[in-house]
Amino acid sequence: MLEPMMKRALHTLLILAFLTGSLLPVSAQRGRRMIVSPEVHPDKTVTFRFIAPDARKVELSTEILKERAAMTRDENGLWSVTIGPVTPDMYPYSFLVDGIQVADPYNVDIFPNERFKRSLVDIPGDKPLIHSLQDVPHGKVTYRYYKSETLELTRRLLVYTPPGYMQNTGKSYPVLYLIHGMTDTEETWYKVGRVNFILDNLIARGEAVPMIIVMPYANPYPELRELNRQVEVDLLGTDLFTDELIHEVIPAIEKNYRTQAGPGNRAIAGFSLGGRQTLAAGLGHPDIFSWVFAYAPAIFDRELDDLFENTYAVQEDINNGLNLLWVSCGRDDGLYAASVKFTGLLNDKGIKHETFFTDGGHTWMNCRLFLTETARLLFK
Amino acid sequence: MLEPMMKRALHTLLILAFLTGSLLPVSAQRGRRMIVSPEVHPDKTVTFRFIAPDARKVELSTEILKERAAMTRDENGLWSVTIGPVTPDMYPYSFLVDGIQVADPYNVDIFPNERFKRSLVDIPGDKPLIHSLQDVPHGKVTYRYYKSETLELTRRLLVYTPPGYMQNTGKSYPVLYLIHGMTDTEETWYKVGRVNFILDNLIARGEAVPMIIVMPYANPYPELRELNRQVEVDLLGTDLFTDELIHEVIPAIEKNYRTQAGPGNRAIAGFSLGGRQTLAAGLGHPDIFSWVFAYAPAIFDRELDDLFENTYAVQEDINNGLNLLWVSCGRDDGLYAASVKFTGLLNDKGIKHETFFTDGGHTWMNCRLFLTETARLLFK
Repeated sequence: MLEPMMKRALHTLLILAFLTGSLLPVSAQRGRRMIVSPEVHPDKTVTFRFIAPDARKVELSTEILKERAAMTRDENGLWSVTIGPVTPDMYPYSFLVDGIQVADPYNVDIFPNERFKRSLVDIPGDKPLIHSLQDVPHGKVTYRYYKSETLELTRRLLVYTPPGYMQNTGKSYPVLYLIHGMTDTEETWYKVGRVNFILDNLIARGEAVPMIIVMPYANPYPELRELNRQVEVDLLGTDLFTDELIHEVIPAIEKNYRTQAGPGNRAIAGFSLGGRQTLAAGLGHPDIFSWVFAYAPAIFDRELDDLFENTYAVQEDINNGLNLLWVSCGRDDGLYAASVKFTGLLNDKGIKHETFFTDGGHTWMNCRLFLTETARLLFK
Repeated sequence: MLEPMMKRALHTLLILAFLTGSLLPVSAQRGRRMIVSPEVHPDKTVTFRFIAPDARKVELSTEILKERAAMTRDENGLWSVTIGPVTPDMYPYSFLVDGIQVADPYNVDIFPNERFKRSLVDIPGDKPLIHSLQDVPHGKVTYRYYKSETLELTRRLLVYTPPGYMQNTGKSYPVLYLIHGMTDTEETWYKVGRVNFILDNLIARGEAVPMIIVMPYANPYPELRELNRQVEVDLLGTDLFTDELIHEVIPAIEKNYRTQAGPGNRAIAGFSLGGRQTLAAGLGHPDIFSWVFAYAPAIFDRELDDLFENTYAVQEDINNGLNLLWVSCGRDDGLYAASVKFTGLLNDKGIKHETFFTDGGHTWMNCRLFLTETARLLFK
């Protein structure tokens, strides 16, 4: 029995050598079979590795550490560094190779973004974290394409449907519209926010109501620019995105999915620029959304008066229309002062709301925390 | 009217300055608002740009050109090169910054792969190419998670459902199982292969039968290694993947989707290592698959006897069971000689098949061509 097995293993090695020798890009060849990066050790330290024989300096840039970590070169040109133990969570990182930001070539988990390419490292907890893959029923994430009449573009969005959606054909669901931050894409809440696993886990524990989550691409500007259709005002998409969401996305979702009717079954949440868009769409339309969650919203002193005058509804309509207005921010976030100012103004105006201020900065670690809290509160 | 518009534009600029100044990684800041890369010009030349003030040499590595293209630095450290006119198609590329492979930070389209990170540039045709987004009804691509009992792992796969799948609840569909190449992932046929747009377009033209396409992740080894569950033989997944596909994936798909029954409604296709797996699963089980499409399959002289003796069915079962065995390869592909040898052996053995040998190498430009031809032939 051993001989054919060994013969087969030998064939395999010969084939691997052939394939790797001739078909992969040169830079991926050297030492490719030995490199694992990142490698998370049982004690929660993490080793990062990068091949760069000719580089002068390679550093690790990660949201785990406040400073960059120097990496050390071995005699084969393999740079590495081990950090930690690291607090369990999923973090973005990249290598700085002579100052150039490079995603980890050996890691398939990439942060979807319009302006940078970073990788993701997930450090598991002793008890599984809420965003981790667990042995529970799984929902699905669907990539859809739709024609926007407003924008005259075919646009993309992602839809999370909870476990059992296909089977429970008699059941309908409430919907959360979930908006990414500046330079993120429609994939960021899925790939970095781990929307699906967070909801799968919360639903399995009975901590969240099964819901549909819609993740649009809130930035149509790159495509509009490519088509030479400059949009002179509203560069932040406050109005443009609100229009498209309310007049096109919501009707299409409610036509194509089994959704529960009425504003009480519609929520909107968003991060950073998406938090700004969330407030414009949500506080602007309390007849449409009864749940509004702004995560570190990008709104500022000088324009607040303008937003309350021209974009948001009046106090009575907000107080009467909304089940919950929720503003969250990390205390180390550059937008924390703005969130404090904004919620102070809500107090002054007598607009009911809740705040959730926590540790940490303008990070996706906090985004996942905010989403988890949101899902626990929603539609109850 | 002009004044509030200008006021708003000013606010926008201040907010953008704030957000970009404090919240984006340093390397993305410098000159970020002016950089578009890649920029496809109307004459089908393409300009690539990359910021690297301290680099000694930046080159463009692309499957458009046989050689790397030198990039030129301007006084701000912006490197650029314009190439072409380029034959319309979608091509992988990356920058080589002092020899280090870097994906384009300004391009959201990334080639999903376990061992490298490259970007994708799409040069439109005068008439839309078959893989391009067109104004036709669109199918959906769904990311699913399933528990494999064989592997004791939760695994991922993607499913393309054709336009109208959700609406035509009385209709059932044939299924193509489509396998990626070595170091690719379950996303590669979607993001690089453009499965969805190719099928949407062919279906709209009446050139392909509406079908479901299932894209599994054919490489469980990284996860098995991470769990310290080494698999000593079958490093190429010929058996392991076949087992999981036949005993778990197919039954799960046929349980969860409206599929047409029987081998005549099941096809398998795959590229490179996936072509090898396709032949093992397809020629090994003509009772399961009646359509087998091997794209530049990774099979070699010394093991062909072994495959025919131990993995594939006998001539009569293949000839009786299969509607079509189809072998394709580019004539510049490193695996072309192997494909010629293999089809010669099929002739010697009297096994019916068709060949599709074409220009080009071991590329995803050819993969899309092979898939297009496959979809035109399938289930007819």
